[in-house]
Amino acid sequence: MESIKVFSPGSITNLSCGYDILGMCLESRGDEITVSKTGKKGVTIKSISGFDLTKDINENVSGIAAQSLLSKINLDHGFEIEINKGIKPGSGIGSSAASSAGTVFAINQLLNSPFSLLDLVKFSMEGEKFVSGAYHADNVAPIIFGGITLVRTIDDLDIIPLPTPEDLEVVIVRPNIEIKTADSRKVVKKKVKIEKMTQQSANLGSFVSSLYSKDYDLMSRSVIDQVVEPDRAVLIPEFEKIKMISKLSGSIAAGISGSGPSIFSLSNNRVTSNNILDKISDHYNSMDIDFDGFISKVNSGGIKIIESK
Amino acid sequence: MESIKVFSPGSITNLSCGYDILGMCLESRGDEITVSKTGKKGVTIKSISGFDLTKDINENVSGIAAQSLLSKINLDHGFEIEINKGIKPGSGIGSSAASSAGTVFAINQLLNSPFSLLDLVKFSMEGEKFVSGAYHADNVAPIIFGGITLVRTIDDLDIIPLPTPEDLEVVIVRPNIEIKTADSRKVVKKKVKIEKMTQQSANLGSFVSSLYSKDYDLMSRSVIDQVVEPDRAVLIPEFEKIKMISKLSGSIAAGISGSGPSIFSLSNNRVTSNNILDKISDHYNSMDIDFDGFISKVNSGGIKIIESK
Repeated sequence: MESIKVFSPGSITNLSCGYDILGMCLESRGDEITVSKTGKKGVTIKSISGFDLTKDINENVSGIAAQSLLSKINLDHGFEIEINKGIKPGSGIGSSAASSAGTVFAINQLLNSPFSLLDLVKFSMEGEKFVSGAYHADNVAPIIFGGITLVRTIDDLDIIPLPTPEDLEVVIVRPNIEIKTADSRKVVKKKVKIEKMTQQSANLGSFVSSLYSKDYDLMSRSVIDQVVEPDRAVLIPEFEKIKMISKLSGSIAAGISGSGPSIFSLSNNRVTSNNILDKISDHYNSMDIDFDGFISKVNSGGIKIIESK
Repeated sequence: MESIKVFSPGSITNLSCGYDILGMCLESRGDEITVSKTGKKGVTIKSISGFDLTKDINENVSGIAAQSLLSKINLDHGFEIEINKGIKPGSGIGSSAASSAGTVFAINQLLNSPFSLLDLVKFSMEGEKFVSGAYHADNVAPIIFGGITLVRTIDDLDIIPLPTPEDLEVVIVRPNIEIKTADSRKVVKKKVKIEKMTQQSANLGSFVSSLYSKDYDLMSRSVIDQVVEPDRAVLIPEFEKIKMISKLSGSIAAGISGSGPSIFSLSNNRVTSNNILDKISDHYNSMDIDFDGFISKVNSGGIKIIESK
């Protein structure tokens, strides 16, 4: 195999109850990344389309993740990357994770998979560290493992794949503003009251239970964030209103996707999802707020190979 | 029915990763509580055996919980309580919870169950509040619901029954000192770093997952407490050593039961449980530390009726 093209999907993280540890892989949006072997050692970014990003391999997450991988293996050749961004940077659905994870996944395929999925998460995390200022695997884990994942720890990386109720889907609405992950992390308080910790833990534990038991009522009660969301919500136009509209339109639960500004709204059928999206659209339109909205199933497979040759 | 005798079991809470919210009902230890109808309104405690506790209904958790129940119903008669304590107060395996929950469970039976299980938890929590200074349902929930429970919230009481892998059992060792829950709560820090919150949450979420997937390796990695246990451990003789001995003897995980001084050690077979108990006993004996130790399966049924007439 000399060249491979993959679809590297977007992802929703936090899901209100799992700040920095919980993530869900999407089906409907993602980057297309083509990686080709080249005679020259190292990695280059040949082209980026869709959105304007640097091709400097030391400042682009694809380059950073790729270099992290290459530092672990001795090769007499290199790789050239072409990125077609389908996810807007700074939108809160894992734009950087899609590029970094997609790139190392593709390179690993071209090398006949010497690296494990956990290794790929580690390489990708170097990209995440670069853009956000902190190591976190909540976006890259579900992209690489598929479905919904819980990152138990990044110190001795431990990723727990969780079951996805088959009818679960999500409405995503992104008001057209950009929030940098690094900035959005700054508003998060450094310490929380122990009572808040137990509440947040209890909600995450209950959410995990709801995935196994397919109990959407429990999911609805569990997808709550009393720690991070209240501070971040002010960054997002009409956030509380959108949450209320979601709820009234039949949503299981709604919250900030990642560090925002995208808002996720969970549903268990397409009729409800369409209704949620319509009602949110009506509101944003009435307020003259520019936005992008779409519906996605949970992507259980993660990154997909589109073609290889 | 004029009189009923129930077995109200002990319980382990926190289980390291679920401070104040996670609990497990035991089979092997508990209080025997007999409640009889009397012509006189209100409640009296006729006798207490096993351990020396006050019979004052305003200072004994059975009396407090019973009064909480009676305040919600209009009766022309009352109840007399006889308590045979099988659980030492202040041992960390839910002594107060067994008495308060057993009492209101018995009264509810004598009244043909006008109250729900959630109601019984609420009444019992009045007893817990009295002894510990704070409302918490982590002991009373698993006693009343059986098995392993997660208290999602006590504000709008929400109890999530979790599955119990059938071969799960627990070794409990109690060094012979008393720790009052109220005192043990004082050493808990009021605030935690947000990173600790995410770690603790992730471990609880992973523990919940391990119960559904019966993944004892994951359970072993998840039953960790980096928030409360480090501060409480110093109150318990040889705690770190006992944890190490447990681990070396095949334990899945070990930690402080409730607010201590009892130590729990999880296992998935009786041979290992016996080995753990033997090795811990050897150590405490060699140190001349008085202790009590036993092995229990998880009690999926909760409070049991022994006889009624």
